[in-house]
Amino acid sequence: MQWYFVAALLTVLTSSQGILTTLSQSNGKYKYDYATVPFLAEVFKLAVSSLLLWRECRISPSVRMTTDWKSVRLYPIPSIIYLIHNNVQFATLVYVDTSTYQIMGNLKIVTTGILFRLFLRRKLSNLQWIAIVLLAVGTTTSQVKGCGEASCDSMFSAPIQGYMLGILSACMSALAGVYTEFLMKKNNDSLYWQNVQLYTFGVIFNIARLLFDDFRGGFENGPWWQRLFNGYNLTTWLVVLNLGSTGLLVSWLMKYADNIVKVYSTSMAMLLTMVLSVYLFTFKPTLQLFLGIIICMMSLHMYFAPPNMLIDLPLPVKATTESLKEVSVERKSDS
Amino acid sequence: MQWYFVAALLTVLTSSQGILTTLSQSNGKYKYDYATVPFLAEVFKLAVSSLLLWRECRISPSVRMTTDWKSVRLYPIPSIIYLIHNNVQFATLVYVDTSTYQIMGNLKIVTTGILFRLFLRRKLSNLQWIAIVLLAVGTTTSQVKGCGEASCDSMFSAPIQGYMLGILSACMSALAGVYTEFLMKKNNDSLYWQNVQLYTFGVIFNIARLLFDDFRGGFENGPWWQRLFNGYNLTTWLVVLNLGSTGLLVSWLMKYADNIVKVYSTSMAMLLTMVLSVYLFTFKPTLQLFLGIIICMMSLHMYFAPPNMLIDLPLPVKATTESLKEVSVERKSDS
Repeated sequence: MQWYFVAALLTVLTSSQGILTTLSQSNGKYKYDYATVPFLAEVFKLAVSSLLLWRECRISPSVRMTTDWKSVRLYPIPSIIYLIHNNVQFATLVYVDTSTYQIMGNLKIVTTGILFRLFLRRKLSNLQWIAIVLLAVGTTTSQVKGCGEASCDSMFSAPIQGYMLGILSACMSALAGVYTEFLMKKNNDSLYWQNVQLYTFGVIFNIARLLFDDFRGGFENGPWWQRLFNGYNLTTWLVVLNLGSTGLLVSWLMKYADNIVKVYSTSMAMLLTMVLSVYLFTFKPTLQLFLGIIICMMSLHMYFAPPNMLIDLPLPVKATTESLKEVSVERKSDS
Repeated sequence: MQWYFVAALLTVLTSSQGILTTLSQSNGKYKYDYATVPFLAEVFKLAVSSLLLWRECRISPSVRMTTDWKSVRLYPIPSIIYLIHNNVQFATLVYVDTSTYQIMGNLKIVTTGILFRLFLRRKLSNLQWIAIVLLAVGTTTSQVKGCGEASCDSMFSAPIQGYMLGILSACMSALAGVYTEFLMKKNNDSLYWQNVQLYTFGVIFNIARLLFDDFRGGFENGPWWQRLFNGYNLTTWLVVLNLGSTGLLVSWLMKYADNIVKVYSTSMAMLLTMVLSVYLFTFKPTLQLFLGIIICMMSLHMYFAPPNMLIDLPLPVKATTESLKEVSVERKSDS
């Protein structure tokens, strides 16, 4: 499977996620407990991964699975980072409004690039750095408030703590991604076995979260498992399936592609959602959305296109060895 | 003189032009006849160029000057193009409001690139094309109306004629630039001699324009030369000197650099003016201005940075010959 096919599928599914979530609401409210959706998605991912692992084991008996505690203990860490991230997010929203938070969220594109470079030691060319910054600028541009929209001067007027927490949030989000990539690539274990470990802890952490919410609410509505499917309809189930599927695709990309590919997929999905919203909902297309799309497309091309497509190089990069010899021979015969 | 020094100076002067023009107004109105400013600027440029040509002729008797009619007759053409452009601009403003016109004005960045390629046969790399489009996108982004500003949905709601004329206007503007570059570079004539021809026709066309305005107004206020300096003060004179100086710098760039350099200079000037307006006038900085500046800076770097600074090439481009031999020797000893 080619990574760009998986990336394109991730874009479509991530985009559908936003639209399905909106469709699953009635009058702008959830009829179901939204906290149950990530839990069920984790269960779905665990089930699918277990099934695939079982099939893999049946076909070939030599499936690579590291089972010692030293390795397994690394798998709850992404869940822990996401847990901290959720709390930082919550704290940030005390200081800034949601649209400023959304704008700051684009910072995670740049922080992912930085952590990708620092922790995974992956070298990026200057042009790729420019492309990453432009992707963040492009997604931000598309979100600039049009004239006539509410809360005008909130952007630069939040307290400094809001911006600090926003930056911290972007770093946590990037760290989770980069750490997961490290985890998936650190050995040649079967992807399904790695997924089973990841999602087992995911399910556990989600149960803990639901229990915690119940405790905090004093079990007013009874324990979470008794009202798990309350208010669920077909769209809600599609939201669950869709969220689970995007998770599986992200796992695949973390093992066989990288964080930057994921960041491009989800950014493009954001733009796609906005374009689809123009047709599906009462979303007015803005000049800034149009400009944002152009910027992100240029960025995509700059990051992934082979250098000899971007710059007229004297020698095509792929055929370096051969051409080197040829050129040097020619030059020798010239002199 | 290095071209980037001239380009930087052009940026500063073009930016001052906007600020000086605003400062020369009282209560948002001109106390003087604005049409006299370009006329006096042409006179200033003609005087400076004549002086410099005279000095050049005194120093060396072999100054290159093509004086046959076949060459001289090409010099009024830029003035004619500008004249048509002014009328197209006027017609466009019948259909679209000034801010939409300003936004569409950024199209001339792209049309300049296209005419530069088509008429001057200058090859640009894919990356340079991306940079040019990004420059246009960046300047447009900086001009996106902030929320709370007036006339919200005028952007996409003008009649189709407005957009067609806007595109035509961008093409005329680009054509004037590209034609001037062709004119300045077509032979090795002295820059000052070329300027003298260019500005003589400039003065003539400006006189014709002032006369035409007088005719149309039925000489109500008397002929233009009688009220030429009416309402002039120090700032107005600075506007004239500044406009004349930018014209001279543009001529220099057309001969020794090119249209794309000029386009970058004036685009950067537009952003600089906006930044200075935040300090000098009551201009509120917007997120889109900040984003626009980042995009244009990235574009500048992409267009002008040497390829080996942007992409990690296997061989540094400058030292190609030497490294080719070295590498090939190493490879031969390896095998």
